[in-house]
Amino acid sequence: MKLEKLVGERFKEKPADCTVESHALMVRGGYMKYVANGIFSSFMPLKRITRKLEAIMRGEMDAIDGQEVSFPVVMPASIWQESGRYETIGKELVRFNDRNGSPVVLGMTHEEAAVQLVREYGQSYNKYPFMIYQIQTKFRDEARPKSGLIRVREFTMKDAYSFHTSQADLEQYYDKCHKAYERIFAKAGIPEVVSVASDSGMMGGKISHEFMLLTDIGEDSIVICPECGYRANMEAAPNIIEYVRTEPSQDLAKVHTPDMHTIEEVCNYLKVDQKQSCKAVVYQRNSDDKFVVLFIRGDLEVNETKMTNYLGFDIHPATITDESPLVAGFIGPVGISSDCIVLYDNSLKGVNNLVCGANELDHHLTGLDMDRDVPTAQFHDFAKVQEGGICPVCGKHCITISRGIEVGNIFQLGTKYTKAMGMTYTDADGNEQNPIMGCYGIGVGRLAAAICEVHHDDYGPIWPISIAPWQVHLCAMRADNEEVRAYADSLYAELQKRGIEVIYDDRNVSAGFMFSDADLLGVPYRVIVSPRNIKQGVVEVSTRDKSLKTTISMETAADEVAKMVLDALQASQNV
Amino acid sequence: MKLEKLVGERFKEKPADCTVESHALMVRGGYMKYVANGIFSSFMPLKRITRKLEAIMRGEMDAIDGQEVSFPVVMPASIWQESGRYETIGKELVRFNDRNGSPVVLGMTHEEAAVQLVREYGQSYNKYPFMIYQIQTKFRDEARPKSGLIRVREFTMKDAYSFHTSQADLEQYYDKCHKAYERIFAKAGIPEVVSVASDSGMMGGKISHEFMLLTDIGEDSIVICPECGYRANMEAAPNIIEYVRTEPSQDLAKVHTPDMHTIEEVCNYLKVDQKQSCKAVVYQRNSDDKFVVLFIRGDLEVNETKMTNYLGFDIHPATITDESPLVAGFIGPVGISSDCIVLYDNSLKGVNNLVCGANELDHHLTGLDMDRDVPTAQFHDFAKVQEGGICPVCGKHCITISRGIEVGNIFQLGTKYTKAMGMTYTDADGNEQNPIMGCYGIGVGRLAAAICEVHHDDYGPIWPISIAPWQVHLCAMRADNEEVRAYADSLYAELQKRGIEVIYDDRNVSAGFMFSDADLLGVPYRVIVSPRNIKQGVVEVSTRDKSLKTTISMETAADEVAKMVLDALQASQNV
Repeated sequence: MKLEKLVGERFKEKPADCTVESHALMVRGGYMKYVANGIFSSFMPLKRITRKLEAIMRGEMDAIDGQEVSFPVVMPASIWQESGRYETIGKELVRFNDRNGSPVVLGMTHEEAAVQLVREYGQSYNKYPFMIYQIQTKFRDEARPKSGLIRVREFTMKDAYSFHTSQADLEQYYDKCHKAYERIFAKAGIPEVVSVASDSGMMGGKISHEFMLLTDIGEDSIVICPECGYRANMEAAPNIIEYVRTEPSQDLAKVHTPDMHTIEEVCNYLKVDQKQSCKAVVYQRNSDDKFVVLFIRGDLEVNETKMTNYLGFDIHPATITDESPLVAGFIGPVGISSDCIVLYDNSLKGVNNLVCGANELDHHLTGLDMDRDVPTAQFHDFAKVQEGGICPVCGKHCITISRGIEVGNIFQLGTKYTKAMGMTYTDADGNEQNPIMGCYGIGVGRLAAAICEVHHDDYGPIWPISIAPWQVHLCAMRADNEEVRAYADSLYAELQKRGIEVIYDDRNVSAGFMFSDADLLGVPYRVIVSPRNIKQGVVEVSTRDKSLKTTISMETAADEVAKMVLDALQASQNV
Repeated sequence: MKLEKLVGERFKEKPADCTVESHALMVRGGYMKYVANGIFSSFMPLKRITRKLEAIMRGEMDAIDGQEVSFPVVMPASIWQESGRYETIGKELVRFNDRNGSPVVLGMTHEEAAVQLVREYGQSYNKYPFMIYQIQTKFRDEARPKSGLIRVREFTMKDAYSFHTSQADLEQYYDKCHKAYERIFAKAGIPEVVSVASDSGMMGGKISHEFMLLTDIGEDSIVICPECGYRANMEAAPNIIEYVRTEPSQDLAKVHTPDMHTIEEVCNYLKVDQKQSCKAVVYQRNSDDKFVVLFIRGDLEVNETKMTNYLGFDIHPATITDESPLVAGFIGPVGISSDCIVLYDNSLKGVNNLVCGANELDHHLTGLDMDRDVPTAQFHDFAKVQEGGICPVCGKHCITISRGIEVGNIFQLGTKYTKAMGMTYTDADGNEQNPIMGCYGIGVGRLAAAICEVHHDDYGPIWPISIAPWQVHLCAMRADNEEVRAYADSLYAELQKRGIEVIYDDRNVSAGFMFSDADLLGVPYRVIVSPRNIKQGVVEVSTRDKSLKTTISMETAADEVAKMVLDALQASQNV
């Protein structure tokens, strides 16, 4: 490919709307173009990267006996009604009516379609286990798409679905797929990806893992214990509380706290640690706006995922008005309106001598004793784990919180979908059973962007050889020089003859211009042909990651460069 | 791949809803499954076929300097409003609002997206020409999906868009792409595909061609002149009329034709040839139901595409009531209400002594002389070409009409989209110009189905080797026999070692069962290992198309079969 003919613009200025580097570099390098919020077109360099990523995934899915199939993007609402998700998923599931008025959805995931495809096939136990997968476009109408390809609305995903006749068989396959995912990420150039326990969310099922690429721009918070190796997504990490009670237990007393609406203001005013306060965090049920009040220790933050998992319905932050049964800023557990759903976090269990709202304007209570004053309270874990918190596995106070990009996820779904959709098989004893499912996803574009996040410098991406859009970037400096032209043209041909993917820059532009374009394309090997080099009978060879810079003889350049590339490619796949 | 593990059911009974063979065989063979009207999932065998078709297309598009890109499935309405098609395309374009209320569409074609992607890039003449293409899911909300994968709502398409600075350059590239399409169809096993001139329809532009696979189940009528080779889609073929006037011209006379509403009834009653009648065919404008009356010679049929192209708006067959300004069954050109749009087909030009409606209940006129009685009439071509009609190129009376499936199309679009969407470049003289576009499409699933239509027998598809899901179908008859098992297992391994794609049936089932499954999978080479063969030291090798049936030595079987396959594969690509 001649660079001169490559469609797409490359430029220097960082676009104002790019908050992460992968987005900025991929726009600046002519990889992608904005079409609508969270919707992009790809130019050829990105398409070549994603096709290589897809080939790696396909290879690993085939290696664990996956069968490539395809499901529709547009699906009848009926199968989503069967699973129940037509009602339970929010606006991110696009619903519309087709020309005949039939309700349809756009696929954001394909558990329903997978069950629909195989429920007649899988009627006998001897068909199991099996796994089907596809690589296909999906649409999720995200409220807040951002960070370029990291969080989009339209995306390509590799999604796989396995079917089993026992939990043990699922677990064995789940483990196999876990290992296949590790190989995928390693082959794609990010072996550092770690798996963490995760919350299964709308997918259902109990056990699930996310594969996380740790980087500061990640949207997810990862709870890590450096002592025992425990890792979990913040949403799934239990918050461990040490029981704290002080003696003696004071009496309840009402204090005047004019205009103090936040727990910080009240604690400062009363000169008590926030750990000695009981904070109210108020939500409303999405369906009917009923109030949901969570009481939690003042220094802790709420993990909303844990709340919605416990409640079984969606909530949003509350709007409290004068008509509400709550007094905003002064809400406490004693005497709270019975017209609310009230939850208590584990951090308040058995605790005493707390400050809390008095359910009366400009007043708080001191001396709250949960055991004494709220004897009926039930306590659950609704809090976010904090840096320095207690590891739920080894019990040490050494939790660290890191940021990560989720680049893949795997779920043990159990029988949620097969039961709901009436998929059964006859077991060896003649009994009807629901198959047990697993599902396994990787977003292709997000993976490309995540790799760029951890493999770039100020000048552009540094693509791993296994997924680079080309393998060699050939620069003919002063292509108007006859010798340069002749040799560079022949080297271009010779490298291609050896199966090497070459992007060839033979434009009559300055070295600086040429190199900044090359930096943006991030091709691993760069070969420079110039009048000076030719005089010395050599070409310059360097790598985009700056680990190599050398000259090699013009005569052997094609063979040597091809060998370097093929060796590096081979090494990248030996994982 | 072991057949035993292949997901998908195969069965004998032809499904009741299948009207064409490709649909029936691909359902019976476990290739595809119905999800909703015109929406299907694919099992692995079909996915393997379509991936091979895609690879053939990709190779040919790359060979004519195409750059693979990708456009979104969900697009903002705004770019379709820019081109004007948001308003002009009917319900087949899916329109809905996203969660923020922004109108979006599902891509059924991507001219707008292509222009949006490159309009900043292509600002200087020296960037041209270039071609970008994608292979992507599309959705067209067809009113009447049918015939399995032949006419669906959701489909995968290879669509390409070229950009040029002159009509001559477009024409040169168009011809190059025409040849690439011929190679694609030849490599896919249907070299008999022919290109025909076509109507450009909603795409715009003047010159376009469709690639047609001639078969009786085709939805399109193809006008062919066996004398000079002229070929066109019925919609695009001009109907050539010989001027027919008889002397003397009779006077106009009103005759009583009680209850005779059709031209056949009237002509029979009056004992005149239908060629001597002037028939009225009535439509209404979609936007306001205004009547559009077409007068045409009684023996001819209307080509509605020609009408809408001439009118520039969409029409539908009329409903005439007592309030209408027309007398149903008795409409004629003399004295017709001025409240209608009136059109005249070329077949009436200069003709006389015609029967026509009198615009009065139960009355017709005889002796109509178009020149004398309708002197202001303007004549255009609105008629369908008939079998035995006149070739518009060589003028001979030898037109034949065939049926065909459209498997590809190419369009010279001109500046329709670039002008509407404000895409310009600066030419060598510093002037602003709109680039000239071409576009080129092939539906992947339809192509697979079309190939099946012309390559099958009563028992299943007969896939060309270049696109077959596997290359060798290995049958181990009596796999419970130790010798059979050992030899078949080793042959399976040896063939795969030689790069051959093998589907291996080692189930303990009858020969009949095994062969009917093999017939449904349509794999070109079949190798049978059986106790009897083993005794003779041979394997049986046959081809699905029955052109070969032989035995070869067990010792050399792996090498010989591999050679057969690779030779056949090579031959299929030498086009």
